[in-house]
Amino acid sequence: MMRAHECENPSYPVSEINQVKRRHDRGFYDHATVHALLDAAVLCHVSYVIDGQPYCTPTFFWREGNRLYWHGSSASRMLRNLANGEAACLTVTHLDALVLARSGFNHSADYRSVMAFGKARLLEDPQEKHHALVMMVDRLYPQRTAQLRLANAQEIKATSVIAMDIDRASAKIRSRGVVDDEEDYALPVYAERIPVSTVLGQPEGCARMVEGTQRPDTLAGYAAGRPLQDALLEAYVTTYGKS
Amino acid sequence: MMRAHECENPSYPVSEINQVKRRHDRGFYDHATVHALLDAAVLCHVSYVIDGQPYCTPTFFWREGNRLYWHGSSASRMLRNLANGEAACLTVTHLDALVLARSGFNHSADYRSVMAFGKARLLEDPQEKHHALVMMVDRLYPQRTAQLRLANAQEIKATSVIAMDIDRASAKIRSRGVVDDEEDYALPVYAERIPVSTVLGQPEGCARMVEGTQRPDTLAGYAAGRPLQDALLEAYVTTYGKS
Repeated sequence: MMRAHECENPSYPVSEINQVKRRHDRGFYDHATVHALLDAAVLCHVSYVIDGQPYCTPTFFWREGNRLYWHGSSASRMLRNLANGEAACLTVTHLDALVLARSGFNHSADYRSVMAFGKARLLEDPQEKHHALVMMVDRLYPQRTAQLRLANAQEIKATSVIAMDIDRASAKIRSRGVVDDEEDYALPVYAERIPVSTVLGQPEGCARMVEGTQRPDTLAGYAAGRPLQDALLEAYVTTYGKS
Repeated sequence: MMRAHECENPSYPVSEINQVKRRHDRGFYDHATVHALLDAAVLCHVSYVIDGQPYCTPTFFWREGNRLYWHGSSASRMLRNLANGEAACLTVTHLDALVLARSGFNHSADYRSVMAFGKARLLEDPQEKHHALVMMVDRLYPQRTAQLRLANAQEIKATSVIAMDIDRASAKIRSRGVVDDEEDYALPVYAERIPVSTVLGQPEGCARMVEGTQRPDTLAGYAAGRPLQDALLEAYVTTYGKS
């Protein structure tokens, strides 16, 4: 029987594949933690295997329930090989700080990452693909697709979308700053935490814009100086609602 | 015979594995381009395969010549499996901008990425490992190891270092901002490029520092507001010299 707190925040099953081996204390498997870290990102790295050779490809992605989507050209190496239910691993990493300790061993980083495992498949159903092509844009920029020139048949054909239902996932989080061996605190060695943040710059409107075209209010979340993860998470909630 | 400009800036060999398939115009294979993008980063994602399952693991890394290094706990899944010359792919991605165009299809991103392929091996020679443990810190923070408490035998044993000579590599760069189909520029659709930058925050000195311990001048490059990639590249050149 499922317990109440599991209903409210279920977890991904843990197995040899996704168990956090090193530093168990940093591992999380519950949907809330895993999904929040995914939804605060747009860039991921996807691993897949062709003829025994691993590839690690950076790409944009988004989440819908327990499903992850990413896309690319229909000609790309990744998509041609992932089309048939190939095993994949999609990873997102937020780097939060560099950590300088009093020994080399205790140098570290504060970070939040997710590894998600599943079988990737090519979207072939036209309705499913249409939905994904809309959400690919609207997940980032709420309601934007309705403001755009419609996609034509050639563009739809040239864009492949991959979906992967998450079978296993784990989040790993370090947020402790400087932690030294107790006896090392007595040493006259300088130690610090250097925060790292990915932020938005001043938006640069296209120089060829039709006169009088205003920046839509739906883009207000993408404001100069704002952390990218805040804008992404806000846009996500606007489009998909709170998870 | 090697031509003069190839002597000055040789290229990685191109094969099925590393050829940029999609958008050939975005692909580069010369050492100067590939190495500069690697040296401006500290976070990478490494792909490797265990029992047919691909893994994508985030980790810190650095470059020495045509060799890449990364490290982790000796207990970690990745390192136990990469110890014996396993195929790996190490990828670095710099996200430079979100690009909002007039059609969904032309939405894009400006970015610079490198995929490097080779066989990963565990460093077992004590001298080779000692050198790597020093450079792991000094690559980021020039001359810092000399200021630290020495590593003890237990720490050296608990830290594994992986080395991978680059067999193949490719860089992929997009830096074009908004590019629409010619006829779409006439549409009254708002389009923009939103710059994205990963920057340093105000360094937070450890609260338990011995009184009078000053921040060393060698950390001056890690200044609040500075792009992380600038600090990393500067530290790299300080430690290794211009490549």
